[in-house]
Amino acid sequence: MSTERPSPTAAVVVIGDEILSGRTQDTNSGDIARALGAIGVDLTEIRVVSDEQALIVEAVNALRAKNTYVFTCGGIGPTHDDKTADAIAAAFGVGIDHDERAIAMMRERFPNPADLNEGRMRMTRIPFGAELIANSVSKAPGFHIGNVFVMAGVPSIMRAMLEVVIPQLETGVPVSSATLLADAKEGDIAMPLAELQRRHPSVSIGSYPFTVGDRFNTNLVLRSRDVRALANAKAAVEAMLSALH
Amino acid sequence: MSTERPSPTAAVVVIGDEILSGRTQDTNSGDIARALGAIGVDLTEIRVVSDEQALIVEAVNALRAKNTYVFTCGGIGPTHDDKTADAIAAAFGVGIDHDERAIAMMRERFPNPADLNEGRMRMTRIPFGAELIANSVSKAPGFHIGNVFVMAGVPSIMRAMLEVVIPQLETGVPVSSATLLADAKEGDIAMPLAELQRRHPSVSIGSYPFTVGDRFNTNLVLRSRDVRALANAKAAVEAMLSALH
Repeated sequence: MSTERPSPTAAVVVIGDEILSGRTQDTNSGDIARALGAIGVDLTEIRVVSDEQALIVEAVNALRAKNTYVFTCGGIGPTHDDKTADAIAAAFGVGIDHDERAIAMMRERFPNPADLNEGRMRMTRIPFGAELIANSVSKAPGFHIGNVFVMAGVPSIMRAMLEVVIPQLETGVPVSSATLLADAKEGDIAMPLAELQRRHPSVSIGSYPFTVGDRFNTNLVLRSRDVRALANAKAAVEAMLSALH
Repeated sequence: MSTERPSPTAAVVVIGDEILSGRTQDTNSGDIARALGAIGVDLTEIRVVSDEQALIVEAVNALRAKNTYVFTCGGIGPTHDDKTADAIAAAFGVGIDHDERAIAMMRERFPNPADLNEGRMRMTRIPFGAELIANSVSKAPGFHIGNVFVMAGVPSIMRAMLEVVIPQLETGVPVSSATLLADAKEGDIAMPLAELQRRHPSVSIGSYPFTVGDRFNTNLVLRSRDVRALANAKAAVEAMLSALH
Protein backbone atom coordinates (compact mmCIF):
# COMPACT_ATOMS: atom_id res chain seq x y z
CA MET A 1 0.00 0.00 0.00
CA SER A 2 2.96 2.32 0.41
CA THR A 3 3.95 4.57 -2.44
CA GLU A 4 7.38 4.78 -4.04
CA ARG A 5 6.89 8.42 -4.98
CA PRO A 6 7.96 10.73 -2.13
CA SER A 7 5.07 12.64 -0.59
CA PRO A 8 4.68 16.35 -1.32
CA THR A 9 5.71 18.51 1.62
CA ALA A 10 4.63 21.95 2.76
CA ALA A 11 5.53 24.68 5.23
CA VAL A 12 3.38 27.49 6.62
CA VAL A 13 4.58 31.04 7.27
CA VAL A 14 2.24 32.96 9.59
CA ILE A 15 2.86 36.68 9.33
CA GLY A 16 1.75 38.67 12.29
CA ASP A 17 2.97 40.69 15.22
CA GLU A 18 -0.37 39.98 16.89
CA ILE A 19 0.51 36.28 17.18
CA LEU A 20 4.02 37.04 18.48
CA SER A 21 2.62 39.37 21.14
CA GLY A 22 0.38 36.56 22.39
CA ARG A 23 -2.70 38.71 21.74
CA THR A 24 -4.13 36.41 19.06
CA GLN A 25 -4.06 32.63 18.85
CA ASP A 26 -3.11 31.36 15.39
CA THR A 27 -5.67 28.84 14.16
CA ASN A 28 -4.88 29.08 10.45
CA SER A 29 -1.90 26.74 10.53
CA GLY A 30 -4.02 24.02 12.15
CA ASP A 31 -6.68 24.42 9.46
CA ILE A 32 -4.00 24.20 6.76
CA ALA A 33 -2.39 21.18 8.45
CA ARG A 34 -5.64 19.23 8.45
CA ALA A 35 -6.54 20.17 4.87
CA LEU A 36 -3.09 19.12 3.62
CA GLY A 37 -3.15 15.92 5.67
CA ALA A 38 -6.39 14.89 3.98
CA ILE A 39 -4.71 14.94 0.56
CA GLY A 40 -1.45 13.36 1.71
CA VAL A 41 0.76 16.47 1.80
CA ASP A 42 3.13 16.47 4.81
CA LEU A 43 3.38 19.71 6.78
CA THR A 44 7.04 19.89 7.85
CA GLU A 45 7.30 23.27 9.57
CA ILE A 46 5.35 26.32 10.74
CA ARG A 47 7.09 29.66 11.23
CA VAL A 48 5.49 32.71 12.79
CA VAL A 49 7.37 35.88 11.84
CA SER A 50 6.96 39.59 12.42
CA ASP A 51 5.43 42.05 9.91
CA GLU A 52 8.84 43.02 8.52
CA GLN A 53 9.77 42.55 4.89
CA ALA A 54 13.30 41.20 5.50
CA LEU A 55 12.02 38.56 7.94
CA ILE A 56 9.20 37.47 5.63
CA VAL A 57 11.62 37.20 2.70
CA GLU A 58 14.08 35.14 4.74
CA ALA A 59 11.45 32.69 5.99
CA VAL A 60 9.75 32.26 2.60
CA ASN A 61 13.02 31.76 0.72
CA ALA A 62 14.34 29.26 3.27
CA LEU A 63 11.15 27.22 3.24
CA ARG A 64 10.31 27.30 -0.48
CA ALA A 65 13.73 25.80 -1.23
CA LYS A 66 13.03 22.86 1.10
CA ASN A 67 9.35 22.10 0.45
CA THR A 68 7.00 21.32 -2.41
CA TYR A 69 4.72 24.15 -1.26
CA VAL A 70 4.76 27.15 1.07
CA PHE A 71 1.59 28.78 2.37
CA THR A 72 1.59 32.23 3.93
CA CYS A 73 -1.22 33.72 6.05
CA GLY A 74 -1.63 37.37 6.85
CA GLY A 75 -0.39 40.76 5.75
CA ILE A 76 -2.33 41.23 2.50
CA GLY A 77 -4.91 43.77 3.71
CA PRO A 78 -5.30 47.46 2.87
CA THR A 79 -3.34 49.00 5.75
CA HIS A 80 0.25 50.21 6.14
CA ASP A 81 1.18 47.20 8.26
CA ASP A 82 0.34 44.76 5.43
CA LYS A 83 3.71 43.95 3.89
CA THR A 84 3.39 40.45 2.51
CA ALA A 85 2.78 41.17 -1.19
CA ASP A 86 5.87 43.39 -1.42
CA ALA A 87 7.88 40.83 0.56
CA ILE A 88 6.90 38.01 -1.79
CA ALA A 89 7.83 40.13 -4.84
CA ALA A 90 11.20 40.79 -3.18
CA ALA A 91 11.64 37.10 -2.31
CA PHE A 92 11.16 36.18 -5.98
CA GLY A 93 13.04 39.22 -7.30
CA VAL A 94 10.10 40.38 -9.42
CA GLY A 95 8.21 43.66 -9.70
CA ILE A 96 4.79 44.39 -8.25
CA ASP A 97 1.95 46.63 -9.39
CA HIS A 98 -1.83 47.00 -9.45
CA ASP A 99 -3.23 43.97 -11.28
CA GLU A 100 -6.16 44.37 -13.70
CA ARG A 101 -7.65 41.00 -12.73
CA ALA A 102 -7.53 41.94 -9.04
CA ILE A 103 -9.05 45.36 -9.74
CA ALA A 104 -11.94 43.66 -11.58
CA MET A 105 -12.55 41.42 -8.54
CA MET A 106 -12.54 44.42 -6.20
CA ARG A 107 -15.00 46.30 -8.46
CA GLU A 108 -17.50 43.48 -7.90
CA ARG A 109 -17.48 44.29 -4.20
CA PHE A 110 -17.06 48.06 -4.54
CA PRO A 111 -18.98 49.15 -7.64
CA ASN A 112 -18.92 52.76 -6.44
CA PRO A 113 -15.49 54.14 -7.49
CA ALA A 114 -15.34 56.29 -4.31
CA ASP A 115 -15.28 53.10 -2.20
CA LEU A 116 -12.40 51.63 -4.18
CA ASN A 117 -10.02 54.02 -2.45
CA GLU A 118 -6.24 54.03 -2.24
CA GLY A 119 -6.26 51.65 0.74
CA ARG A 120 -8.39 49.07 -1.00
CA MET A 121 -6.37 49.53 -4.20
CA ARG A 122 -3.32 48.40 -2.20
CA MET A 123 -4.98 44.98 -2.14
CA THR A 124 -4.77 44.80 -5.95
CA ARG A 125 -0.96 45.03 -5.92
CA ILE A 126 0.21 41.60 -7.10
CA PRO A 127 3.76 40.44 -7.89
CA PHE A 128 4.44 40.05 -11.61
CA GLY A 129 3.85 36.51 -12.84
CA ALA A 130 1.55 35.51 -9.98
CA GLU A 131 -1.81 33.77 -10.43
CA LEU A 132 -4.70 35.02 -8.31
CA ILE A 133 -6.50 33.04 -5.61
CA ALA A 134 -10.21 33.91 -5.54
CA ASN A 135 -11.71 35.19 -2.28
CA SER A 136 -15.41 34.34 -2.06
CA VAL A 137 -15.81 36.21 1.25
CA SER A 138 -14.52 39.72 0.53
CA LYS A 139 -13.14 39.55 -3.07
CA ALA A 140 -9.59 40.91 -2.38
CA PRO A 141 -7.57 38.03 -3.84
CA GLY A 142 -4.62 36.04 -2.61
CA PHE A 143 -2.08 34.85 -5.15
CA HIS A 144 0.41 32.15 -5.90
CA ILE A 145 3.79 32.48 -7.49
CA GLY A 146 6.18 29.59 -7.98
CA ASN A 147 5.43 27.17 -5.17
CA VAL A 148 4.24 29.86 -2.74
CA PHE A 149 0.54 30.43 -1.97
CA VAL A 150 -0.24 33.78 -0.33
CA MET A 151 -3.46 33.86 1.67
CA ALA A 152 -5.31 36.18 4.02
CA GLY A 153 -4.95 36.16 7.80
CA VAL A 154 -8.66 36.49 8.68
CA PRO A 155 -9.58 32.84 9.33
CA SER A 156 -12.86 32.83 7.37
CA ILE A 157 -11.12 34.32 4.32
CA MET A 158 -8.10 32.04 4.68
CA ARG A 159 -10.40 29.01 4.68
CA ALA A 160 -12.22 30.25 1.57
CA MET A 161 -8.89 30.65 -0.22
CA LEU A 162 -7.67 27.25 0.98
CA GLU A 163 -10.74 25.64 -0.61
CA VAL A 164 -9.65 27.14 -3.93
CA VAL A 165 -6.01 26.12 -3.49
CA ILE A 166 -6.33 22.53 -2.28
CA PRO A 167 -7.64 21.12 -5.63
CA GLN A 168 -4.61 22.65 -7.40
CA LEU A 169 -2.06 20.73 -5.33
CA GLU A 170 -0.24 17.54 -6.09
CA THR A 171 -1.55 14.84 -3.75
CA GLY A 172 0.18 12.05 -1.87
CA VAL A 173 -1.05 8.96 -0.09
CA PRO A 174 -2.83 10.29 3.01
CA VAL A 175 -1.43 9.30 6.38
CA SER A 176 -3.96 7.17 8.24
CA SER A 177 -4.05 7.34 12.00
CA ALA A 178 -5.47 5.56 15.00
CA THR A 179 -5.76 7.11 18.45
CA LEU A 180 -5.77 4.91 21.54
CA LEU A 181 -6.37 6.14 25.07
CA ALA A 182 -3.69 4.33 27.06
CA ASP A 183 -5.38 4.83 30.43
CA ALA A 184 -1.85 4.79 31.85
CA LYS A 185 0.93 7.20 32.72
CA GLU A 186 3.46 7.64 29.92
CA GLY A 187 6.29 6.46 32.16
CA ASP A 188 4.55 3.12 32.80
CA ILE A 189 4.34 2.23 29.11
CA ALA A 190 7.46 3.89 27.70
CA MET A 191 9.59 0.76 27.40
CA PRO A 192 7.00 -1.63 25.89
CA LEU A 193 6.01 1.19 23.54
CA ALA A 194 9.62 1.70 22.41
CA GLU A 195 9.85 -2.04 21.68
CA LEU A 196 6.61 -1.88 19.64
CA GLN A 197 8.01 1.11 17.71
CA ARG A 198 11.10 -0.96 16.87
CA ARG A 199 8.92 -3.84 15.65
CA HIS A 200 6.66 -1.59 13.53
CA PRO A 201 9.09 0.78 11.78
CA SER A 202 6.64 1.88 9.06
CA VAL A 203 4.22 3.20 11.71
CA SER A 204 5.01 6.33 13.70
CA ILE A 205 3.88 5.84 17.30
CA GLY A 206 3.41 9.14 19.13
CA SER A 207 2.81 9.35 22.87
CA TYR A 208 0.97 12.45 24.12
CA PRO A 209 0.53 12.84 27.87
CA PHE A 210 -2.25 15.01 29.24
CA THR A 211 -3.73 15.74 32.63
CA VAL A 212 -7.31 15.59 33.86
CA GLY A 213 -7.16 17.44 37.15
CA ASP A 214 -4.14 15.96 38.91
CA ARG A 215 -4.29 12.66 37.05
CA PHE A 216 -1.93 11.92 34.16
CA ASN A 217 -3.11 9.94 31.16
CA THR A 218 -1.73 9.32 27.68
CA ASN A 219 -3.05 9.35 24.14
CA LEU A 220 -1.19 7.14 21.71
CA VAL A 221 -1.43 8.22 18.09
CA LEU A 222 -0.32 5.73 15.45
CA ARG A 223 0.27 7.15 11.96
CA SER A 224 1.20 5.44 8.72
CA ARG A 225 0.63 5.58 4.97
CA ASP A 226 0.39 1.77 5.05
CA VAL A 227 -3.07 0.89 6.38
CA ARG A 228 -2.24 -2.79 6.84
CA ALA A 229 0.87 -1.97 8.88
CA LEU A 230 -1.20 0.51 10.88
CA ALA A 231 -3.81 -2.12 11.72
CA ASN A 232 -1.07 -4.57 12.81
CA ALA A 233 0.64 -1.98 15.00
CA LYS A 234 -2.69 -0.91 16.51
CA ALA A 235 -3.50 -4.52 17.46
CA ALA A 236 -0.06 -4.91 19.02
CA VAL A 237 -0.41 -1.71 21.06
CA GLU A 238 -3.90 -2.74 22.20
CA ALA A 239 -2.53 -6.10 23.33
CA MET A 240 0.24 -4.35 25.26
CA LEU A 241 -2.29 -2.06 26.96
CA SER A 242 -4.62 -4.98 27.81
CA ALA A 243 -1.78 -6.90 29.47
CA LEU A 244 -1.14 -3.78 31.55
CA HIS A 245 -4.61 -3.41 33.02
CA MET B 1 10.76 56.95 28.66
CA SER B 2 12.47 54.90 25.97
CA THR B 3 15.57 52.94 26.79
CA GLU B 4 18.92 53.15 25.00
CA ARG B 5 19.77 49.55 25.77
CA PRO B 6 18.34 47.24 23.08
CA SER B 7 15.56 44.99 24.36
CA PRO B 8 16.25 41.31 24.94
CA THR B 9 14.74 39.10 22.23
CA ALA B 10 13.51 35.53 22.24
CA ALA B 11 12.35 32.78 19.91
CA VAL B 12 10.22 29.72 20.63
CA VAL B 13 10.74 26.27 19.11
CA VAL B 14 7.69 24.04 19.48
CA ILE B 15 8.63 20.41 18.97
CA GLY B 16 5.79 18.17 17.98
CA ASP B 17 4.39 16.14 15.14
CA GLU B 18 1.00 16.46 16.84
CA ILE B 19 0.94 20.20 16.11
CA LEU B 20 2.08 19.72 12.49
CA SER B 21 -0.66 17.14 11.90
CA GLY B 22 -3.27 19.66 13.06
CA ARG B 23 -4.38 17.28 15.79
CA THR B 24 -3.33 19.56 18.66
CA GLN B 25 -3.47 23.33 18.91
CA ASP B 26 -0.27 24.84 20.30
CA THR B 27 -1.08 27.15 23.19
CA ASN B 28 2.37 27.16 24.82
CA SER B 29 3.86 29.76 22.50
CA GLY B 30 1.05 32.20 23.34
CA ASP B 31 1.64 31.69 27.06
CA ILE B 32 5.37 32.28 26.59
CA ALA B 33 4.72 35.35 24.42
CA ARG B 34 2.57 37.00 27.09
CA ALA B 35 4.97 36.15 29.94
CA LEU B 36 7.92 37.57 27.98
CA GLY B 37 5.97 40.65 26.96
CA ALA B 38 5.26 41.46 30.59
CA ILE B 39 9.00 41.72 31.32
CA GLY B 40 9.92 43.55 28.12
CA VAL B 41 11.43 40.66 26.15
CA ASP B 42 10.46 40.74 22.45
CA LEU B 43 9.34 37.45 20.89
CA THR B 44 10.71 37.55 17.33
CA GLU B 45 9.82 34.15 15.93
CA ILE B 46 8.02 30.88 16.61
CA ARG B 47 8.97 27.70 14.78
CA VAL B 48 7.07 24.44 14.98
CA VAL B 49 9.25 21.51 13.90
CA SER B 50 8.90 17.76 13.71
CA ASP B 51 10.20 15.29 16.34
CA GLU B 52 13.45 14.71 14.41
CA GLN B 53 16.85 15.44 15.87
CA ALA B 54 18.34 17.07 12.78
CA LEU B 55 15.39 19.46 12.44
CA ILE B 56 15.42 20.39 16.14
CA VAL B 57 19.19 21.04 16.00
CA GLU B 58 18.84 23.21 12.90
CA ALA B 59 16.05 25.35 14.36
CA VAL B 60 17.67 25.78 17.77
CA ASN B 61 21.08 26.67 16.34
CA ALA B 62 19.62 29.15 13.86
CA LEU B 63 17.54 30.89 16.52
CA ARG B 64 19.99 30.91 19.42
CA ALA B 65 22.50 32.75 17.23
CA LYS B 66 19.95 35.50 16.52
CA ASN B 67 18.20 35.94 19.88
CA THR B 68 18.98 36.63 23.52
CA TYR B 69 16.97 33.53 24.49
CA VAL B 70 15.42 30.46 22.90
CA PHE B 71 12.64 28.47 24.56
CA THR B 72 11.73 24.97 23.46
CA CYS B 73 8.51 23.13 24.35
CA GLY B 74 7.97 19.41 24.04
CA GLY B 75 9.91 16.22 23.54
CA ILE B 76 11.38 15.72 27.02
CA GLY B 77 9.11 12.91 28.23
CA PRO B 78 9.89 9.24 28.86
CA THR B 79 8.92 7.75 25.49
CA HIS B 80 10.89 6.86 22.35
CA ASP B 81 9.45 9.85 20.46
CA ASP B 82 10.97 12.33 22.97
CA LYS B 83 14.14 13.53 21.26
CA THR B 84 14.71 17.04 22.50
CA ALA B 85 17.37 16.43 25.19
CA ASP B 86 19.61 14.54 22.75
CA ALA B 87 18.99 17.16 20.09
CA ILE B 88 20.02 20.00 22.42
CA ALA B 89 23.19 18.13 23.41
CA ALA B 90 23.96 17.70 19.71
CA ALA B 91 23.18 21.37 19.00
CA PHE B 92 25.72 22.42 21.64
CA GLY B 93 28.19 19.64 20.81
CA VAL B 94 28.22 18.30 24.37
CA GLY B 95 27.62 14.88 25.88
CA ILE B 96 24.47 13.77 27.69
CA ASP B 97 23.92 11.32 30.54
CA HIS B 98 21.73 10.61 33.56
CA ASP B 99 22.06 13.55 35.93
CA GLU B 100 22.27 12.99 39.71
CA ARG B 101 20.29 16.16 40.47
CA ALA B 102 17.52 15.07 38.11
CA ILE B 103 17.48 11.56 39.57
CA ALA B 104 17.06 13.06 43.05
CA MET B 105 14.06 15.07 41.81
CA MET B 106 12.48 12.00 40.26
CA ARG B 107 13.00 10.00 43.47
CA GLU B 108 10.80 12.54 45.26
CA ARG B 109 7.95 11.56 42.99
CA PHE B 110 8.82 7.88 42.66
CA PRO B 111 10.25 6.73 46.03
CA ASN B 112 9.67 3.09 45.08
CA PRO B 113 12.69 2.11 42.90
CA ALA B 114 10.46 -0.15 40.76
CA ASP B 115 8.50 2.92 39.62
CA LEU B 116 11.65 4.76 38.58
CA ASN B 117 11.92 2.51 35.54
CA GLU B 118 14.02 2.84 32.39
CA GLY B 119 11.42 5.05 30.73
CA ARG B 120 11.27 7.53 33.60
CA MET B 121 15.08 7.41 33.90
CA ARG B 122 15.19 8.72 30.31
CA MET B 123 13.84 11.97 31.76
CA THR B 124 16.97 12.34 33.91
CA ARG B 125 19.25 12.47 30.84
CA ILE B 126 20.57 16.05 30.78
CA PRO B 127 23.21 17.58 28.49
CA PHE B 128 26.54 18.21 30.22
CA GLY B 129 26.83 21.73 31.59
CA ALA B 130 23.08 22.38 31.74
CA GLU B 131 21.26 23.80 34.77
CA LEU B 132 17.97 22.18 35.72
CA ILE B 133 14.55 23.85 35.62
CA ALA B 134 12.35 22.64 38.48
CA ASN B 135 8.98 21.07 37.65
CA SER B 136 6.51 21.54 40.49
CA VAL B 137 3.83 19.48 38.72
CA SER B 138 5.50 16.16 37.97
CA LYS B 139 9.16 16.62 39.05
CA ALA B 140 10.88 15.59 35.77
CA PRO B 141 12.97 18.71 35.18
CA GLY B 142 13.57 20.92 32.19
CA PHE B 143 16.99 22.44 31.74
CA HIS B 144 18.83 25.40 30.33
CA ILE B 145 22.16 25.46 28.58
CA GLY B 146 23.71 28.59 27.13
CA ASN B 147 20.79 30.79 26.15
CA VAL B 148 18.39 27.88 25.49
CA PHE B 149 15.62 26.94 27.94
CA VAL B 150 14.16 23.46 27.41
CA MET B 151 10.65 22.99 28.78
CA ALA B 152 7.91 20.38 28.71
CA GLY B 153 5.10 20.24 26.15
CA VAL B 154 2.21 19.53 28.53
CA PRO B 155 0.79 23.03 29.07
CA SER B 156 0.40 22.85 32.86
CA ILE B 157 4.00 21.65 33.25
CA MET B 158 5.31 24.20 30.73
CA ARG B 159 3.64 27.01 32.70
CA ALA B 160 5.15 25.73 35.98
CA MET B 161 8.61 25.74 34.39
CA LEU B 162 8.05 29.16 32.86
CA GLU B 163 7.31 30.57 36.34
CA VAL B 164 10.76 29.34 37.41
CA VAL B 165 12.50 30.67 34.29
CA ILE B 166 11.01 34.15 34.00
CA PRO B 167 12.75 35.59 37.12
CA GLN B 168 16.12 34.44 35.70
CA LEU B 169 15.81 36.49 32.50
CA GLU B 170 17.22 39.87 31.65
CA THR B 171 14.32 42.32 31.42
CA GLY B 172 13.58 45.18 29.06
CA VAL B 173 11.13 48.04 29.09
CA PRO B 174 7.72 46.39 28.59
CA VAL B 175 5.79 47.35 25.49
CA SER B 176 2.58 49.15 26.47
CA SER B 177 -0.43 48.79 24.25
CA ALA B 178 -3.85 50.27 23.65
CA THR B 179 -6.60 48.54 21.72
CA LEU B 180 -9.28 50.58 19.95
CA LEU B 181 -12.33 49.14 18.26
CA ALA B 182 -12.48 51.09 15.00
CA ASP B 183 -16.13 50.29 14.28
CA ALA B 184 -15.14 50.61 10.61
CA LYS B 185 -13.94 48.44 7.77
CA GLU B 186 -10.16 48.38 7.42
CA GLY B 187 -10.36 49.71 3.87
CA ASP B 188 -12.22 52.83 5.03
CA ILE B 189 -9.49 53.87 7.47
CA ALA B 190 -6.36 52.57 5.75
CA MET B 191 -5.15 55.92 4.41
CA PRO B 192 -5.71 58.13 7.49
CA LEU B 193 -4.18 55.33 9.56
CA ALA B 194 -1.06 55.23 7.36
CA GLU B 195 -0.71 58.99 7.80
CA LEU B 196 -0.99 58.61 11.59
CA GLN B 197 1.66 55.88 11.52
CA ARG B 198 3.99 58.27 9.67
CA ARG B 199 3.38 60.99 12.28
CA HIS B 200 3.91 58.62 15.24
CA PRO B 201 6.98 56.59 14.26
CA SER B 202 7.78 55.37 17.81
CA VAL B 203 4.36 53.72 18.05
CA SER B 204 3.54 50.59 16.08
CA ILE B 205 -0.04 50.80 14.80
CA GLY B 206 -1.46 47.39 13.91
CA SER B 207 -4.78 46.92 12.13
CA TYR B 208 -6.58 43.62 12.69
CA PRO B 209 -9.79 43.01 10.75
CA PHE B 210 -12.33 40.52 12.02
CA THR B 211 -15.85 39.47 11.12
CA VAL B 212 -18.98 39.25 13.23
CA GLY B 213 -21.31 37.26 11.03
CA ASP B 214 -21.08 38.96 7.63
CA ARG B 215 -19.98 42.29 9.04
CA PHE B 216 -16.35 43.41 8.95
CA ASN B 217 -14.87 45.39 11.79
CA THR B 218 -11.32 46.29 12.83
CA ASN B 219 -9.29 46.31 16.01
CA LEU B 220 -6.47 48.82 16.11
CA VAL B 221 -3.63 47.89 18.44
CA LEU B 222 -1.09 50.59 19.27
CA ARG B 223 2.16 49.41 20.84
CA SER B 224 5.13 51.35 22.15
CA ARG B 225 7.78 51.30 24.86
CA ASP B 226 7.22 55.08 25.21
CA VAL B 227 3.99 55.56 27.20
CA ARG B 228 3.75 59.29 26.43
CA ALA B 229 4.10 58.67 22.69
CA LEU B 230 1.51 55.90 23.01
CA ALA B 231 -0.99 58.25 24.69
CA ASN B 232 -0.45 60.87 21.98
CA ALA B 233 -0.91 58.36 19.16
CA LYS B 234 -4.00 56.92 20.85
CA ALA B 235 -5.59 60.37 21.08
CA ALA B 236 -4.80 61.02 17.42
CA VAL B 237 -6.33 57.71 16.30
CA GLU B 238 -9.42 58.35 18.45
CA ALA B 239 -9.82 61.78 16.84
CA MET B 240 -9.52 60.23 13.38
CA LEU B 241 -12.17 57.62 14.25
CA SER B 242 -14.52 60.25 15.75
CA ALA B 243 -14.32 62.33 12.59
CA LEU B 244 -15.32 59.22 10.65
CA HIS B 245 -18.51 58.44 12.55
